[in-house]
Formats: sequence, C-alpha cells, structure tokens
Amino acid sequence: MSDNSIPKIVISRLPVYLRALSRMINKGQLVTSSHELGKALGISSAQIRKDLSHFGEFGKQGTGYQVEFLITQLSQILNLDREWEVAVIGSGDIGHAITRYQGFADRGFRVSVIFDSDPQKVGSYINGLEVMHASQIVKVLRERNIQIAMLAIPAEYAQKVTDTVVDAGVRAILSYAPISLNVPDHVRVSYIDPVTHLQSMTYYLSTEQDLMSQPL
Amino acid sequence: MSDNSIPKIVISRLPVYLRALSRMINKGQLVTSSHELGKALGISSAQIRKDLSHFGEFGKQGTGYQVEFLITQLSQILNLDREWEVAVIGSGDIGHAITRYQGFADRGFRVSVIFDSDPQKVGSYINGLEVMHASQIVKVLRERNIQIAMLAIPAEYAQKVTDTVVDAGVRAILSYAPISLNVPDHVRVSYIDPVTHLQSMTYYLSTEQDLMSQPL
Repeated sequence: MSDNSIPKIVISRLPVYLRALSRMINKGQLVTSSHELGKALGISSAQIRKDLSHFGEFGKQGTGYQVEFLITQLSQILNLDREWEVAVIGSGDIGHAITRYQGFADRGFRVSVIFDSDPQKVGSYINGLEVMHASQIVKVLRERNIQIAMLAIPAEYAQKVTDTVVDAGVRAILSYAPISLNVPDHVRVSYIDPVTHLQSMTYYLSTEQDLMSQPL
Repeated sequence: MSDNSIPKIVISRLPVYLRALSRMINKGQLVTSSHELGKALGISSAQIRKDLSHFGEFGKQGTGYQVEFLITQLSQILNLDREWEVAVIGSGDIGHAITRYQGFADRGFRVSVIFDSDPQKVGSYINGLEVMHASQIVKVLRERNIQIAMLAIPAEYAQKVTDTVVDAGVRAILSYAPISLNVPDHVRVSYIDPVTHLQSMTYYLSTEQDLMSQPL
C-alpha cells in the first residue's frame, strides 16, 4: 500500500493519530470524529480527513470513526503488525533511559541490543541486556538483521557511528545527537531534538505574557 | 504578531525550518529557496511558502530567501530573541542528559534549575547545577519567574508534578513521560516520544524490504 506518492509529512502524522486513538481506547472510548481528533491534536479536521483519505475510507459520514478499527488500520499501514528489533548505540544517560523506556511496549518495538565503546561499560547490564563492545556492531546487526538503530552518543562521534550502522544494514536511524547526519538515499533519519519542541511553545508564551501585562 | 488564528501545526514547523536554516548558515550558505528547504525536510515547497506567508513576505520571487534574514525573522516570531530559563524536574538518566545537552546553546534556552525528590540525589551537582529538593519547586520557580519545565520523571508521578509546576506558574511543559497530561487551557504541553519517530520510519522499511525480496 505504501509508496512515495504520499507526502512524508502525512506519514509523520499517522503515529500521532495512533497515539491519540490509543489514549481513547484506553479510556474505553469506542467512536471518535475527525473534529474530536483534531481538537485533541491541534490539527484541523479537514487535514485529518485528507490525511486518512490517502489510505482508503475509514469512517462513515455522520457516524465518525470506530477507534479500534482505525488503530488496526493505521498499525498495518505503518507496518506495526510485527515487532521490530532496535539497536541502541551508546550506554550513557540517554542510552540507559531508552533501554529502560516504558513506552515501547505494545507499540511495535523492542530494544534487543546495546553497544558502547567504553571498556568500563561493556559487559554491564541495562534492563537485562548486556552492553556489547561497539566493535561488534556490524557483526551483530547483520546476524540479527536489525534494521533500526537509535543513536545516543555525543555529536562528535555521531557521523562515524552512522556510517557503521548503515554498513551493518540499518535503514532507519533515530538520533539524539544535535547534529545533522549524512546517509545514503535508502536510509531514513529522524532526530529527537527537545529544542524544536520548546521553540514551538515559546511562540505562545510571550504573547500571553504581553496580554497579561497590559492594563485591564 | 502571534495570535490564535495561525494553526498550531504551522507554528510547530517553524522550529524545523529554523534548524534547517541554521545548518545552512553554519555551512556558509547565504541564500535558499522554498524548493531546497522543502527537499531537505520532506515538505512541499508550496507548504513552506504558505506557512511563511502567515507572517509576511520573506523572499522575492526568483531570488529565494536570505538565510540569515529568515533566521532572524523566525527567531523573533518564536520569541527566541531572548534566553528562556528552563526547570528540569527529575535527575535520573533523562534529567542528567537534558541538563548536559549541548543542543540548547544559542537556541534560546538554558537549564537553570533541576529538582528531584530522592534525598540521595538532592545536593549533588549536574553540569554545575545543584539538584534541589522537589519540595522547593513552587517557591523557586515563582521567585525566578520560570515558565518552562521539562519533566524527566516516571509516568506514575507525571500528573502530580505537572499540577505542581502549573501551580508554580509554568506555562509550557515538555514531557518525556509516556502518558498524556491534563493541564489548564493556558498551559502548553509537548511530548518527546521516540516511538512516534520510529513508527513513521517503519512505514518505509517494509516496503523497501518487500521490493528487495521480489525477483528481479
């Protein structure tokens, strides 16, 4: 079903819809609407209907969406009807936190290997996983056919490690390092950058401040 | 300039444009186009022009955008022409990582206080900052007029701590906990969730896998 004709930005919104829908089902809500979803997410209902229309007809006019059905459909579209193994590179603060993150469960992913180049850390255990030496990355990732890596390493090593995991067959990289990575066309990269989140909130902050400081 | 008539999703893209533009200027690139920006970000050039048109006229037809000028303008729009103090709540793995994060510098933010409720951690230093006891949150945040908090705490404490920082005057929360937070209307919340990033990449992974396994 998936092809390049669907804009990347539409694909990037589907996990956000999925998360909102999962919250609804966890609260026992069975039906929703593009209007309600949009209100929860700050996206227009027209945009949501347009995004979903790329993939078929998921709701009926007037009756809205069946939450569980839409979750199943979105999961299939995003290839989450299987569990993906994830390699974590770096066992510092962020590597630790990722490996222990409670949010992966039942959402399609499992951290199954972790690497570090620091001899002090190699051989230690995080969440039951033994930290392996970074020199093993290519061998282990190829053997286990792991296609997803999360980089939790300082910026200065990020490109070198990227080259290594790409060489090992990785095709999706999620990086916490605050630098831009160069990868071949067949590899996807996404960045976790808290600053972009903060920056989109400060837009609203000062306005409210200004309003508050005006004479009543 | 900012008001509620501009869709939240447009605002959320401005920091992404800003980051891409900063990369250009760091490489010495002085001029860009909506086409080039769009290609770098996976967003259509029409969308970029439409987003920017909400705020005025930043480029000339045929000559593109002056990178530095556009950076200045976007920084002003997002209220980044000042430095915002940020409170970090939680001094575990993620709290440590945030406090030491190299990506805040020159982008409008500075972690200036960090709290924890664990007596073992209170009084220790991270990146030169003393970890304060969580019981001090309301007092310290009010005194210093800190409006932004980053939550790096387990899911089970996240709502309680949210209520506390809101009580202390915080109006923007960035949470790493994998649960949805309830806040009053005047408070903005954003979530860092690595899973949504991974999920938008797996959309492409399997397709490519399927293509590769087809007979040539």
